[in-house]
Amino acid sequence: MPKGTISILGLGAMGSAIAARLRDTGYTTTVWNRTTAKTAPHAAAGSTAAATITEAVQASDIIVAVLLDHASIHANLEPAAADLKGKVLVNLTTTTPNEAKTTATWAAEHGITYLDGAIMAIPEMIGGPAARLLYSGDENAYAIARPALETLGTAEYEGTDPGRASLKDMALLTAMYSMFNGYFQAAAMMRTVGVSAEATAQEVIAYNGALLPHIAHYAALIEHRDYSAGQSVDFTRTAVGSLITAAREQGVSADALEPLARRLDELTATGRSTADWISVIEQLTIK
Amino acid sequence: MPKGTISILGLGAMGSAIAARLRDTGYTTTVWNRTTAKTAPHAAAGSTAAATITEAVQASDIIVAVLLDHASIHANLEPAAADLKGKVLVNLTTTTPNEAKTTATWAAEHGITYLDGAIMAIPEMIGGPAARLLYSGDENAYAIARPALETLGTAEYEGTDPGRASLKDMALLTAMYSMFNGYFQAAAMMRTVGVSAEATAQEVIAYNGALLPHIAHYAALIEHRDYSAGQSVDFTRTAVGSLITAAREQGVSADALEPLARRLDELTATGRSTADWISVIEQLTIK
Repeated sequence: MPKGTISILGLGAMGSAIAARLRDTGYTTTVWNRTTAKTAPHAAAGSTAAATITEAVQASDIIVAVLLDHASIHANLEPAAADLKGKVLVNLTTTTPNEAKTTATWAAEHGITYLDGAIMAIPEMIGGPAARLLYSGDENAYAIARPALETLGTAEYEGTDPGRASLKDMALLTAMYSMFNGYFQAAAMMRTVGVSAEATAQEVIAYNGALLPHIAHYAALIEHRDYSAGQSVDFTRTAVGSLITAAREQGVSADALEPLARRLDELTATGRSTADWISVIEQLTIK
Repeated sequence: MPKGTISILGLGAMGSAIAARLRDTGYTTTVWNRTTAKTAPHAAAGSTAAATITEAVQASDIIVAVLLDHASIHANLEPAAADLKGKVLVNLTTTTPNEAKTTATWAAEHGITYLDGAIMAIPEMIGGPAARLLYSGDENAYAIARPALETLGTAEYEGTDPGRASLKDMALLTAMYSMFNGYFQAAAMMRTVGVSAEATAQEVIAYNGALLPHIAHYAALIEHRDYSAGQSVDFTRTAVGSLITAAREQGVSADALEPLARRLDELTATGRSTADWISVIEQLTIK
């Protein structure tokens, strides 16, 4: 027996994974994409391909949008506002907290029950237990959509502020891209001496995996602004300088580390060379 | 029964941890530091405090240097070259691969058996199984120093090229600092809405911990320069742009992500907007 009707707007890698998962778990799914070619494999697998946004919106009670960005949400959904009225709109598009608030205000003005969502996973993880999806906004929208959303991964409701799920997502994605980018640079350095990207990956997985829990120790110090001990700014400044030099010696750009080097320079220039290097976090606040 | 004589030059956080570990495992240790105050706790715990580098070098068969940088190695050790002759010098100072090669050449000219080392650990980890120390250079030096070095953590010999341990260390430290820096930015963003650094740390540990193994998947694609599928440059460029905007909206600098954003812009500008975003690694090579 069908569980309910859901339309998925946007069939990029993430939208496709979501549509497939909802279809596979028994939902009656309708799909729409800006370029229609991407709907074909979904239609072949049992979804209905909608030719227009309006058609897709009219087909279901719950509308899940996974579009490119905030601009594409408004460009595509504003003409369909009347059709969205009274329905649940779950916006999983990656947008900033301020953008989520803007969309929530627009939805409220049009009688649309709005839930903002953020996906803390890559498409391959959708449907598995490791995929976490954060939601914030209308509590009623969450209550209605929750059974469907729980098929996508672990669902967590972060409160009524529609921007909150996005902020947490953005913060964690920043940490994720920084980690991946660090691996790219390590692999670029090591392949100059013939070490494979795979071998470096195994090294980075082991090394960063062992050090990742140490963040909790830093956190306790940061929380109390206790920068009186630990590895010094001066030591770290020299070490990071060596990393930049080593990368350049191998013909690899080191620009991802340069902002950190500048912050350590700032701390040294303002008499804090003996402070714990983790005090660089205080330099991140825009004065 | 004493296991052997080792002098530790440099009592920063790392040098101190190493001296303490060697002393605690039964070595007869002599310590030297540029500012003598730091030798006092070691002398109280059973090490001999040397007043000069020469005195420290003469006291032991194995000399372990943990100084600030390459310049301090040469400033301090060159005057003691005659005393170092015939001894094993293990240089654990963070230096670049080219600097390690320079020091190895200097050591060979003075009859010093030279081993370059790199510590893949923070001071708190010294002596524990998670601490890895890489060595490269003279095989004989490694054979002689190995029992002592194995008390510090897992010891790995990377071959006779004296720069190799350093290069691997630099690559992995780059990945580590990138990961830590990403956490700092995440914590800075979340504390603007009252979320503690500890709470964000737990989130980052869980999230990055779940995603870290995915590096192996990227590595296989990078190794074959297969950038035909996966999350696109265009999608990622928009997402990273949102991260930068979101950070700024919270009053937090996003400059650590700007080099990645620039690379994604470069790929888009050169017709590669549909390629896998991990192809940014190819942009790291300095043309």
